[in-house]
Amino acid sequence: MKPSDREQRVLDRVERIRGRRPVVREKLITLAHGAGGKATQTLIEAIFLEAFRNPLLEPLGDAAELAVGTSRLALTTDSFVVTPLFFPGGDIGDLAVNGTVNDLAVAGARPLYLAAGFILEEGFPVADLTRIAGSMREAADAAGVRVVTGDTKVVQRGKGDGCYINITGVGVIEHQARLDLAAVRPGDAVIVSGPIGEHGVTIMLARGDLDIEADLVSDTAPVHGLVAELLGSTDGVRAMRDATRGGVATILNEAARAAKVAVVVDEDAIPVRPEVRGAAELLGIDPLYVACEGRFVSFVDGAEADRALAALRRHPLGAQSAVIGRIAADPPGLVLLNTAFGGTRICDLLVGDPLPRIC
Amino acid sequence: MKPSDREQRVLDRVERIRGRRPVVREKLITLAHGAGGKATQTLIEAIFLEAFRNPLLEPLGDAAELAVGTSRLALTTDSFVVTPLFFPGGDIGDLAVNGTVNDLAVAGARPLYLAAGFILEEGFPVADLTRIAGSMREAADAAGVRVVTGDTKVVQRGKGDGCYINITGVGVIEHQARLDLAAVRPGDAVIVSGPIGEHGVTIMLARGDLDIEADLVSDTAPVHGLVAELLGSTDGVRAMRDATRGGVATILNEAARAAKVAVVVDEDAIPVRPEVRGAAELLGIDPLYVACEGRFVSFVDGAEADRALAALRRHPLGAQSAVIGRIAADPPGLVLLNTAFGGTRICDLLVGDPLPRIC
Repeated sequence: MKPSDREQRVLDRVERIRGRRPVVREKLITLAHGAGGKATQTLIEAIFLEAFRNPLLEPLGDAAELAVGTSRLALTTDSFVVTPLFFPGGDIGDLAVNGTVNDLAVAGARPLYLAAGFILEEGFPVADLTRIAGSMREAADAAGVRVVTGDTKVVQRGKGDGCYINITGVGVIEHQARLDLAAVRPGDAVIVSGPIGEHGVTIMLARGDLDIEADLVSDTAPVHGLVAELLGSTDGVRAMRDATRGGVATILNEAARAAKVAVVVDEDAIPVRPEVRGAAELLGIDPLYVACEGRFVSFVDGAEADRALAALRRHPLGAQSAVIGRIAADPPGLVLLNTAFGGTRICDLLVGDPLPRIC
Repeated sequence: MKPSDREQRVLDRVERIRGRRPVVREKLITLAHGAGGKATQTLIEAIFLEAFRNPLLEPLGDAAELAVGTSRLALTTDSFVVTPLFFPGGDIGDLAVNGTVNDLAVAGARPLYLAAGFILEEGFPVADLTRIAGSMREAADAAGVRVVTGDTKVVQRGKGDGCYINITGVGVIEHQARLDLAAVRPGDAVIVSGPIGEHGVTIMLARGDLDIEADLVSDTAPVHGLVAELLGSTDGVRAMRDATRGGVATILNEAARAAKVAVVVDEDAIPVRPEVRGAAELLGIDPLYVACEGRFVSFVDGAEADRALAALRRHPLGAQSAVIGRIAADPPGLVLLNTAFGGTRICDLLVGDPLPRIC
């Protein structure tokens, strides 16, 4: 597919911007820096990648791959600052465990061990902490991982928000596949493992700022079993990513950029529950940008797509998996959305932060 | 040494309390729960150990030891919430890297990889973040470790305090020694690797609440080189701990409890700079309870103490190492301090939190 003149102009501008050394133009941190979109990417590249630069960090994947002795390990870290702490379908405890388990799983690792760091605010109810620890344990048991070390800090009232949790996970990579977003190539299929956006919309509704009632629960779940099913079915998997902050659209943009390909998505093919679509419309946000916590996107050799989809659908968590698009050669670096109305639009990285503190 | 009648009564009470299943009696989290003393220990045992119970977690050491393939790994996590973020001798960045490197080092591991999680408050200056990342890089270079993965979250104004950092570290254990506080035994020497309490007192003075001027800087430093020197000099090292929250007194109590021995310390032998002693007196706290961030306590076979001390003193960071006491059989579980005035007192775990947010 050749880009239209308008697309080509956008593409040229994107390329010019992307070619520059990233610079954080803001003097102060904003919520957008934590949203997973453009501002986050710039912050990470301009400050953290610049300071810590090394070949293990540079892929900036969900997990770093480490060689230790004869083993290949995956290491990932994630802080959870979700508000409210308890929401339909889960709480910060299982969210944190599942989130870390999922980052390991989509990196192709079998999750093994977790380290948990708590930052508690003075005045936080001990009963809530007990409940959160219980959820963590249940989620860890379900995922077959163990919390093996931890740390607890307490900050004064007004210097936190009840409970923040950092979870770092260690997993072992046992297969031979090299999963890498840069390996995605034209002809590959793009598959999502289920309906999107449920976690983010559930959190927004749980805050009660909007007077919307919807029969929705978070999709928080560990996907390691589903990932194993997929990897066992075919050697055609190029890469996987769990669609958390910034949603599916962010993953697609990362793939387009990393592999220098176009991602062409059919809006009609994206599974979205009506309740999510309705609430997202009221919130003024596209479900493609809303966080999921139990869904992932896989990029699979087009010839293997049917086999991959069948494998995913055999697993209860993947029953509603769907091929939502394909990879094309042109225009490299862009995500194009074929809309339900027959048009095509560019689906760029998120700007700003319409949904803060979702995870 | 037989306990006196008074000591025996204290000991009986301590044993009765310790025999009980730990329970957090407070309904709300207090700063004491984060101070590293009694309340922290109860919180960890009653809530986290109870929820996550497994053999790898139960030693509750500075790092968990994990078997992965043919390798022995150490995993440790620590959140840093120090205020102020910048202080004489360092900042939250090098403090965080050194703190995690040290937890690995005293577990007998060679530090290799770090994962860094940032929780930033909206409005935090980007220039400060850049400076902190630079300090982290310098500290990582000095310790021979790499930051290989990370995460950034942003919380609203008033829900954080500028910048919190969680660092999780992975190291590899290459020696055959089994370091374990429970292995400490009567006749062992207790060695500190330098003057104590400098970090904690420096932070208190940097807050400016007290109008004290003192020529003090934090002792924040990576101790992995010093630890290697010690472990290379003798097979007599039973255990090591870095003396952070709760200070040296907390480590001594943990050893007394874990090994069911008495720790007998000579107050006169403890290296404390006059500036630290003076400031601690004004603050109304014993330097034994004040955090260090570049000192560790080692428990060494008495027959090897001279050799160990000589090895420590050969290293610039350990030039002022000192034997501060010895291990006795009785009274088990207690730390006894022979005071400068010729008396003996029990040096128990810290109660409350006189020095919050030191690390």
